[in-house]
Amino acid sequence: MVDLNIAYIGGGSRNWARTLMNDLATCPDLNGEVRLYDIDIEAARINERLASIIWAQPEVCSHWHFRTFESLPAALKGADLVIISIQPGSLEQMAHEIAVAEKYGLFYPVGDTTGAPGLMRGLRSVITYAGFAEAIAEYAPDAWVINYTNPMTICTRTLTRVAPQIKAFGCCHEVFGTQIILANLAQEILGLEDLPTRDEIHVNVLGINHFTWIDRAEYRGHDLVALLREYIQRPGILHTYTQEQVEAQSNWFYDPCQIKFTLFQRFGILAAAGDRHLAEFVPGFIRSPDELFRWGIIRTPVSWRMEVYKESARLVEDLLAGRETFALRITGEEAVRQIRSLFGLEDFITNINMENQGQITNLPLHSVVETNACFSRDRVQPLVAGSLPLSVHGLVMRHVANQEMIIEAALTRDKALAFQAVFNDPTVNLPIDRAWAMFNEIGFPDEW
Amino acid sequence: MVDLNIAYIGGGSRNWARTLMNDLATCPDLNGEVRLYDIDIEAARINERLASIIWAQPEVCSHWHFRTFESLPAALKGADLVIISIQPGSLEQMAHEIAVAEKYGLFYPVGDTTGAPGLMRGLRSVITYAGFAEAIAEYAPDAWVINYTNPMTICTRTLTRVAPQIKAFGCCHEVFGTQIILANLAQEILGLEDLPTRDEIHVNVLGINHFTWIDRAEYRGHDLVALLREYIQRPGILHTYTQEQVEAQSNWFYDPCQIKFTLFQRFGILAAAGDRHLAEFVPGFIRSPDELFRWGIIRTPVSWRMEVYKESARLVEDLLAGRETFALRITGEEAVRQIRSLFGLEDFITNINMENQGQITNLPLHSVVETNACFSRDRVQPLVAGSLPLSVHGLVMRHVANQEMIIEAALTRDKALAFQAVFNDPTVNLPIDRAWAMFNEIGFPDEW
Amino acid sequence: MVDLNIAYIGGGSRNWARTLMNDLATCPDLNGEVRLYDIDIEAARINERLASIIWAQPEVCSHWHFRTFESLPAALKGADLVIISIQPGSLEQMAHEIAVAEKYGLFYPVGDTTGAPGLMRGLRSVITYAGFAEAIAEYAPDAWVINYTNPMTICTRTLTRVAPQIKAFGCCHEVFGTQIILANLAQEILGLEDLPTRDEIHVNVLGINHFTWIDRAEYRGHDLVALLREYIQRPGILHTYTQEQVEAQSNWFYDPCQIKFTLFQRFGILAAAGDRHLAEFVPGFIRSPDELFRWGIIRTPVSWRMEVYKESARLVEDLLAGRETFALRITGEEAVRQIRSLFGLEDFITNINMENQGQITNLPLHSVVETNACFSRDRVQPLVAGSLPLSVHGLVMRHVANQEMIIEAALTRDKALAFQAVFNDPTVNLPIDRAWAMFNEIGFPDEW
Amino acid sequence: MVDLNIAYIGGGSRNWARTLMNDLATCPDLNGEVRLYDIDIEAARINERLASIIWAQPEVCSHWHFRTFESLPAALKGADLVIISIQPGSLEQMAHEIAVAEKYGLFYPVGDTTGAPGLMRGLRSVITYAGFAEAIAEYAPDAWVINYTNPMTICTRTLTRVAPQIKAFGCCHEVFGTQIILANLAQEILGLEDLPTRDEIHVNVLGINHFTWIDRAEYRGHDLVALLREYIQRPGILHTYTQEQVEAQSNWFYDPCQIKFTLFQRFGILAAAGDRHLAEFVPGFIRSPDELFRWGIIRTPVSWRMEVYKESARLVEDLLAGRETFALRITGEEAVRQIRSLFGLEDFITNINMENQGQITNLPLHSVVETNACFSRDRVQPLVAGSLPLSVHGLVMRHVANQEMIIEAALTRDKALAFQAVFNDPTVNLPIDRAWAMFNEIGFPDEW
Repeated sequence: MVDLNIAYIGGGSRNWARTLMNDLATCPDLNGEVRLYDIDIEAARINERLASIIWAQPEVCSHWHFRTFESLPAALKGADLVIISIQPGSLEQMAHEIAVAEKYGLFYPVGDTTGAPGLMRGLRSVITYAGFAEAIAEYAPDAWVINYTNPMTICTRTLTRVAPQIKAFGCCHEVFGTQIILANLAQEILGLEDLPTRDEIHVNVLGINHFTWIDRAEYRGHDLVALLREYIQRPGILHTYTQEQVEAQSNWFYDPCQIKFTLFQRFGILAAAGDRHLAEFVPGFIRSPDELFRWGIIRTPVSWRMEVYKESARLVEDLLAGRETFALRITGEEAVRQIRSLFGLEDFITNINMENQGQITNLPLHSVVETNACFSRDRVQPLVAGSLPLSVHGLVMRHVANQEMIIEAALTRDKALAFQAVFNDPTVNLPIDRAWAMFNEIGFPDEW
Repeated sequence: MVDLNIAYIGGGSRNWARTLMNDLATCPDLNGEVRLYDIDIEAARINERLASIIWAQPEVCSHWHFRTFESLPAALKGADLVIISIQPGSLEQMAHEIAVAEKYGLFYPVGDTTGAPGLMRGLRSVITYAGFAEAIAEYAPDAWVINYTNPMTICTRTLTRVAPQIKAFGCCHEVFGTQIILANLAQEILGLEDLPTRDEIHVNVLGINHFTWIDRAEYRGHDLVALLREYIQRPGILHTYTQEQVEAQSNWFYDPCQIKFTLFQRFGILAAAGDRHLAEFVPGFIRSPDELFRWGIIRTPVSWRMEVYKESARLVEDLLAGRETFALRITGEEAVRQIRSLFGLEDFITNINMENQGQITNLPLHSVVETNACFSRDRVQPLVAGSLPLSVHGLVMRHVANQEMIIEAALTRDKALAFQAVFNDPTVNLPIDRAWAMFNEIGFPDEW
Repeated sequence: MVDLNIAYIGGGSRNWARTLMNDLATCPDLNGEVRLYDIDIEAARINERLASIIWAQPEVCSHWHFRTFESLPAALKGADLVIISIQPGSLEQMAHEIAVAEKYGLFYPVGDTTGAPGLMRGLRSVITYAGFAEAIAEYAPDAWVINYTNPMTICTRTLTRVAPQIKAFGCCHEVFGTQIILANLAQEILGLEDLPTRDEIHVNVLGINHFTWIDRAEYRGHDLVALLREYIQRPGILHTYTQEQVEAQSNWFYDPCQIKFTLFQRFGILAAAGDRHLAEFVPGFIRSPDELFRWGIIRTPVSWRMEVYKESARLVEDLLAGRETFALRITGEEAVRQIRSLFGLEDFITNINMENQGQITNLPLHSVVETNACFSRDRVQPLVAGSLPLSVHGLVMRHVANQEMIIEAALTRDKALAFQAVFNDPTVNLPIDRAWAMFNEIGFPDEW
Repeated sequence: MVDLNIAYIGGGSRNWARTLMNDLATCPDLNGEVRLYDIDIEAARINERLASIIWAQPEVCSHWHFRTFESLPAALKGADLVIISIQPGSLEQMAHEIAVAEKYGLFYPVGDTTGAPGLMRGLRSVITYAGFAEAIAEYAPDAWVINYTNPMTICTRTLTRVAPQIKAFGCCHEVFGTQIILANLAQEILGLEDLPTRDEIHVNVLGINHFTWIDRAEYRGHDLVALLREYIQRPGILHTYTQEQVEAQSNWFYDPCQIKFTLFQRFGILAAAGDRHLAEFVPGFIRSPDELFRWGIIRTPVSWRMEVYKESARLVEDLLAGRETFALRITGEEAVRQIRSLFGLEDFITNINMENQGQITNLPLHSVVETNACFSRDRVQPLVAGSLPLSVHGLVMRHVANQEMIIEAALTRDKALAFQAVFNDPTVNLPIDRAWAMFNEIGFPDEW
């Protein structure tokens, strides 16, 4: 039984907070306090109330107290662990960034990680995260820090660049999706009765968040990369979509796997993110809505995100009012498993985003990369994942360099450098004067 | 007085050979033999005859004998110096490569260095140059080797990669043009009576051929980079062109300086090549003929190159027939000055293309880079040029990586890798299936 | 249940072979064939007979067939695993190497890894191992290769340098001893009833074989490095020895821990090898027998090794004649556990010697280093161990460089380079002419 | 004609100041002010008076005013150039450091650069130089800074580490001596009438100060390295000395060349410093006075340095009193030539100590290394010198690492790290407890 103090920055979250509550409520060997901190303090207070309702439910098997803090230092003091999961800027700002890019002929399906909108979002995030880094270094220097915010790489790297002494890493479940694709492949081709679990699909992961690659995948001695190589040669696996087919899809997060599999066909290594993300990292896909449709992709509308946000508020109101009950479930998130591990309850290996200390031989030291790591008491030790193949290295390295430039640009308020990063993004491909116009229209923060 | 044996590969040249003859004819302290080797042996024989006519002219101040050799080994044996200046493939092939790229929406003004046509041309060149490297290593291992062929970086790097022991470098006068632009700037802004000579414009050069950068430029204590920074802010210096204005230009090699100056405006460092080349290295410019016109650029038609080629033949015929006389002149080329230096007659500093041994801190060792170097007896010693700024590094590094991939692909006959290089070219920006179609239409050599 | 073909090079071993037999005999889920190959074929045949006697014992819980092969290719063809455990050269040669070094004032307690005798032994081993590497690459390219021979680093690195495609690593139990020292420390200071097992002492290992370092050691949340820091300050822990005290010790492998603890006191990081080895890596200790006595160390006489060798022969004769029975026991060796893991029966983490792919940030890529690694089906994946502190890096790096030079010298038969490595050894410290005399007296192979 | 303000730190110098005065007095195209700053202000005032006497001499061909400043900031403000030439600590301190080392069996011939006394002297120097660096960065950020103080590498590196923006390099004439040795060799072997000048002996220089190496040496097309290789094989060239022979030498700086030539014999590359210095960098030579005698070396007594110091005072008194006249001469120092170059009067190439920006491929970036560099207006641009051979790299790298550790230790007041550097010095080779005792007896500054 471990007793913990968790500081939760962004504790007014409308969705992720409930996942955390669920996972803590169903974990019998962790107890303690979660200190909610949010610039929207009312939202934090709502979560505090929600937690007290959940922990009143009899099936909950742990003891946790959620408390709202008005100041970040107060929330951090004495924390064993810091969780950061925020929305950097409003959804309106996100909508604006994506819309300006579209005006210049760049159609981003997500817009939160890279490309013109993602880098501008990154620019804003750096300032916020630099503040977090300084506060953590001062008030909770020994705490573990887990980041969940996108752009993942920029946020996590800002923490370690501004305060190298803090123990920070970033978590993302994007790779899990590719493991499930591989599990399905194994089941189909090997004729298995049951779908293998994610833990049974052993993958070597290397790259950066949302642009991670798998060069080895194994299930009980079967080489899944070789199986996939055969699989995509079957007639009909690689195909194009029509706009109608795409729009008929009801799920905004549907992954058609056409970009992933075509990259695999040409590069011989498997990208481990959804096609929506991949389209934003590799040149050629985002040049028009039609081009995206051809690959089976529809852009996630920010208006839909706004709707989800409102619905979440309604759901929470219902829970608080007792009109709905909070049903405990298995979420598939790993946060609580990682926390158990860091505090000595279990060792395990999973993929995380962390400063490169050698885990990827041909990416720069200190850049934040995504690989497998071994979690144990007070330690997250990456496994050596090896090198990216020469050609994929080129694709990845541009983004690594741009992300570092964005961080540098934000920390030094260097507008020219911020523009250079946006201009260098491989999907932008605009004449330099048009790129400059777009950059200014998206808007470099005036106050800098 | 130095006596030399020069093996000249591509000795059937219709133009560059006459420049060499001129410069040897006017240099009083070098004598010897030039051994012409060419796959078109008749063309070499014509140059042999032309040389004997030139050296019969009384104003010639040296003794040189030009001889045609049927085999490369025979031409190389005993050579003190090897000059390579060839056309890798026919002009028809070049026209085809450029035309296919245009079909896919990529409009390259030159097409001999990078981009889809340049890389495919590079692929072909590697095979030819690998043969040269092996022959030189066997028959003239101590000779200095000067390359003049484009793609300069790929050709020179193939020599040193296949035969690391040979002493090879590449020469290009592209930087000279930027020095003249700076000389004009100095004259105008400083109110000088005379145009400074190229030797008086001290520049620090760093980058790769046709994509070299100048981060310091000085004339008698005046900082020309600072002067340029002011200059481009004058009204009218940065401007757009109309198609009519561009087409009114009679010179295919006219440099409008708009790309160079706009890159300088945004990146703070001066690209040292003509805009026609720069447009092929930086994303955004080659997307349509109109976009090129907007920047003042017209594509050099291969048909024009074919015409020049024919005219040269006519001119040589006239010279051989005595209908024309060969007027000696100052060419502005540096080959003979470099040769004098390598054989102990003068030390001097100029820019050349050579394996990176540290001269550019943040480009890979062994890649061929362009910087200043000190020429002296039997030595070409690069000066440390420093690092490219982070953002320009990103622009340059993509090409360095692609060129290395093209060489690897050619030497190992790896079609997938060759495609990956073309796909990774920052100007290509096609969906991966369209890029694959273009790549196959340009044509990976069947026989591989 | 896994069925394996194991090729055992050095299968005529008089001691290690019996350990392997014991461990295979007590492991219920591995079966198969062990193919014995040895330049002393009679010795291999004896082990074949011994195995048949052991596997006739009723308490044996597996099925293994041991067969002698006269040629290495035959032994290798079809092998899933190759074990190499040889004596490189005779014990007489070893005695000679150590004796010459002593004549020049250098007194090595072991003489098989580094220092003048160890490097000369390495030189010989390289030639032998280059032959193994070529044979394995040709006849068993997919097999896993485990090396047990000293000098561990030189032997293992020769395998991967000569045949980079083979899957080789090296095993040594030297670190286990330091884990036991830490277990005893934990028991004493924390007042534990039971001695913690080696698995419970979590250490981060980094360095090279016999000169490995521990910068983190943890037992159930207790920082053992901090405990050790206090422990060595207790009166009497650090002390000197007299010759009499040392000679009274009956065990040649006794570890007085004085060098280890004094290095820890001054460098703040714990060397994870016995003092006998450490004395050969760090300057100052081997300058006289008295100096060694002062630190509690006696040199292991080669005559004793010869005696052990003879006794082993007698023991085997007794076993074959039925005068002795082979009692199965727990050996503490990890070979069989590693094999189980490589063939899919268990995942675990232990320390091994492997090419640096990034696991140690500040040692050269490709040098063979010792760190923890995760064993799983068909994979040994190192954990990122981080960097050696600046000062320890200096101590280690000299040996890394010397070992690489010895390998290069052997492969290219470069006597000057071999001498340079010996001269550069930090314990040699002789005037260069005396070092040259010693080097020649130990003897660079004449036939080279 | 150039007009300069030179700040001279250590301007109370009893010897080097007169050399500077001489060289400025004989250089017709430089004029200006020299601002003398010294902790011994009286000594500076004496030099001010001496200068006014010298500039009253009719044969002086320039106009310089020497002024004493009481504060460093005042001396620096407005300076175009800063010269630093100090004695770090008293000669008594130097005598103590050398004597303690001798007590522990380490006999250093010079004691100012490396080894136990040199590193301890370095430790002291760092603190002083850190102060200079900060003052220069504040008061003369655009000035060129030339260091002449030993330990050269530590002092110069401290400047650039503490204030990376300042333009600093270090000068030493040690390499000149080896050029003269080569000139004599060329004259003797080639049968030349005249001794070649230093400028005619072209050498490629690479290494660190006092431990620099020459891998190419050329005189008019003759390979001097090859000539030397033959030369040392002549009978009697390599030989040992007796104590009597050595003591019969009247010159403390006599260079017997035995260490240099024997290293050349075994390593194939020529060390470019006097044997007195080399003995302090390479293991084996300083183990006893007899060993040094055997190589022809006698230790320079600090008592002699004290005597010289007193004599200088007497000489200056005589000059001031008019009892002696100051005869202008050719000193062979390069300071004034370098200054002329930096201010636009001449370009030339010479060897200097500067941060590694790539000039030596296999030494760490930012460490201070010695190579050739091209001097021109406002620029010192190193030439790429290439890589040290593997084995020499090992010898040099230890010192590079130790010097960096000493600087780090001084700046962070880290006694343990300072000790580690001393212990790691390849000439120390003491048991760690004895090394610790010596370290403490030499004395880590109490006040830290």
